[in-house]
Amino acid sequence: MRTLITNIGELTTNDPAVGEDACGTLHDAAVLIDHGRIEWVGPADEVPADAEGFEEVNAHGGAVLPGFVDSHSHIVFGGDRAAEFEARMAGQKYAAGGIRSTVAATRAATDEELRARLSGFIDEMAAQGTTTVEIKSGYGLDVETEARLLRLAAEVTEEVTYLGAHVVPAEFADRSDAYVDLVVGEMLEACAPHAKWIDVFCERGAFTVAQSRRVLEAGIARGLHPRVHASQLGPGEGVQLAVELGAASVDHGTYVTDDDIAALAASDTVLTLLPGVEFSTRQPYPDARRLIDAGVTVAIACDTNPGSSFTSSMPFCIAVAVREMGMTTAEAVWAATAGGAAALRREDIGVIAPGKRADLVLLGAATRVHLAYRPGVPLVRHVWKDGVLTH
Amino acid sequence: MRTLITNIGELTTNDPAVGEDACGTLHDAAVLIDHGRIEWVGPADEVPADAEGFEEVNAHGGAVLPGFVDSHSHIVFGGDRAAEFEARMAGQKYAAGGIRSTVAATRAATDEELRARLSGFIDEMAAQGTTTVEIKSGYGLDVETEARLLRLAAEVTEEVTYLGAHVVPAEFADRSDAYVDLVVGEMLEACAPHAKWIDVFCERGAFTVAQSRRVLEAGIARGLHPRVHASQLGPGEGVQLAVELGAASVDHGTYVTDDDIAALAASDTVLTLLPGVEFSTRQPYPDARRLIDAGVTVAIACDTNPGSSFTSSMPFCIAVAVREMGMTTAEAVWAATAGGAAALRREDIGVIAPGKRADLVLLGAATRVHLAYRPGVPLVRHVWKDGVLTH
Ligand SMILES: [Zn+2]
Ligand SMILES: [Zn+2]
Repeated sequence: MRTLITNIGELTTNDPAVGEDACGTLHDAAVLIDHGRIEWVGPADEVPADAEGFEEVNAHGGAVLPGFVDSHSHIVFGGDRAAEFEARMAGQKYAAGGIRSTVAATRAATDEELRARLSGFIDEMAAQGTTTVEIKSGYGLDVETEARLLRLAAEVTEEVTYLGAHVVPAEFADRSDAYVDLVVGEMLEACAPHAKWIDVFCERGAFTVAQSRRVLEAGIARGLHPRVHASQLGPGEGVQLAVELGAASVDHGTYVTDDDIAALAASDTVLTLLPGVEFSTRQPYPDARRLIDAGVTVAIACDTNPGSSFTSSMPFCIAVAVREMGMTTAEAVWAATAGGAAALRREDIGVIAPGKRADLVLLGAATRVHLAYRPGVPLVRHVWKDGVLTH
Repeated sequence: MRTLITNIGELTTNDPAVGEDACGTLHDAAVLIDHGRIEWVGPADEVPADAEGFEEVNAHGGAVLPGFVDSHSHIVFGGDRAAEFEARMAGQKYAAGGIRSTVAATRAATDEELRARLSGFIDEMAAQGTTTVEIKSGYGLDVETEARLLRLAAEVTEEVTYLGAHVVPAEFADRSDAYVDLVVGEMLEACAPHAKWIDVFCERGAFTVAQSRRVLEAGIARGLHPRVHASQLGPGEGVQLAVELGAASVDHGTYVTDDDIAALAASDTVLTLLPGVEFSTRQPYPDARRLIDAGVTVAIACDTNPGSSFTSSMPFCIAVAVREMGMTTAEAVWAATAGGAAALRREDIGVIAPGKRADLVLLGAATRVHLAYRPGVPLVRHVWKDGVLTH
């Protein structure tokens, strides 16, 4: 099954070998797809002579880019927290809310209920151009439910993250070390077979840096790869820990310090920014300009979750990153595609080049700039996943 | 042709006679539509016994609200200014851009080109739940082109606004009074037959308050109804002028003063906020909380235009108004529906009540709060315009 996408007004390849800018941009381009992989990329008038027997799709001058790689989500959960959001926006306390209400609802939900909800999010994300999504556990916080969430996540993505150390559950209040024992013991044993990644929320109010180290090292010993939530609510040692342990990504980074930035810039650890969180919690935005100028590799993800960021729109996050974080559109689009791939240590996605997976998005707009220039407008016209037109 | 929408989880009627809050909210509701008008609204288990011979639509617990009334747009134009937006976001000067480049491209465009573009915007807006849109001229700035833009706008909406006084065109540089002579003379004669409204950009760098008064009074004398752009870039006398002349709406208001607020609160003039403008120009946001608490009637509109706000998404504008302007979601949804209707002095739209036009939106979400809680996510599932399912 071959497809030729032609008459592409602007093609963002993210291939350093192509084009003149950091996004490997080509104009008046074409892409040939064969059996789920990119076969050829080049000028529309230089399609290989032997490129026969393909279905042709005319992009009508629209922009094509790699499918979005959303490297941070929490989309297996039950319950509803809209009223808590409304109260927060009105500056009111909302005693009944918080992550623990999601934990209770998630534990009470059946597999079928969780699967239906998850499937709705996956469809919604795909329609908005996301072709790869990472999914974390973390609303079970007991052995059985954490393992169940990971099994459900694994039904829809390869990028599954064990986040038993999301928050200390109510039944372990004031016994956080005992909860960490569980997370690195029986829970890890039950969860590791279903996951690729181990994650921890290293933050005041969640897990200390010593606890976070225990969690990550136990996961690594069990064959999982580390990633970290850190510096969302204030400065801390989580970023340094992530770099020291070779984490693929440290996420949030709202309060990164100069030392954190220097450590990140000298490492292979990506800093994943989550603009939806600052938007939906009214926190200050991190300065992506300062990060990029210092040489940090930056990704953008949605952090879709019912508490702090319920958007699933990578285009929205790009627009906010440009408006609020000092990124150019080219940088934000790179961060939402190649950056996300780097945050997942994936080399087969986030780039449009021969041999890579044929995950592409066609916009109903002439350039990728429109993703920030036209905030909120659904611009995604077509999406290919592994070479198959899904939207 | 009758339609019963049933199993509505949350129905926002905006009818003061209904429900307990300012939005006239009902739960577990149904709406009966007959020949383009609302026939009946009430609890889902109290549908009138004689309600037979209708098509039933199951809302599956989703939220239904009046279609969005976008009372401020500039969507008849030619040309492209994406590069200017990109330069502005990067903090760079962009000499070639500005409104005059749009004027040149619009004058050069054929009717067919303008119509195709306009039709694309109308479709895009409808898909996002906008059932009424106001459209302004203002990129012609000569007699022939202004009249042409209004004729094209009138093909797609009843709410057509003559904005010859958008900016002084290059050929009248340093002769702004001579341009106003044209706007209130030959241009008004050519334009008035196609328009319902007269508008002026009363702002330093555009038209003085004296010039604005001339424009509005000439329009009123010719049977047009006034509306005003004012206080976008700094405080000025435009708001007071709008109130004095009984304008339906004064739009922007980024820099309204205490005196402006007092005048608005004592008037029938709506203040229409345009969150997309502040988002896309990095200007400070006006404080809607202060306006509402003072008794001002507030609307929200997109101001879709290629320079300062290229979004066409009312849900996006609602989300930004909640995040940045201190509105509750209920207030923002009211402002984007009933508020827009007030800004257009329309009593037949913006409310779901017997006898009103059957313009409705069904969300793929349980409450209207999700419009702010899930920013950027396309939540609009179905749209009815005059009782007809259009999306
Ligand atoms: Zn997270
Ligand atoms: Zn305007």
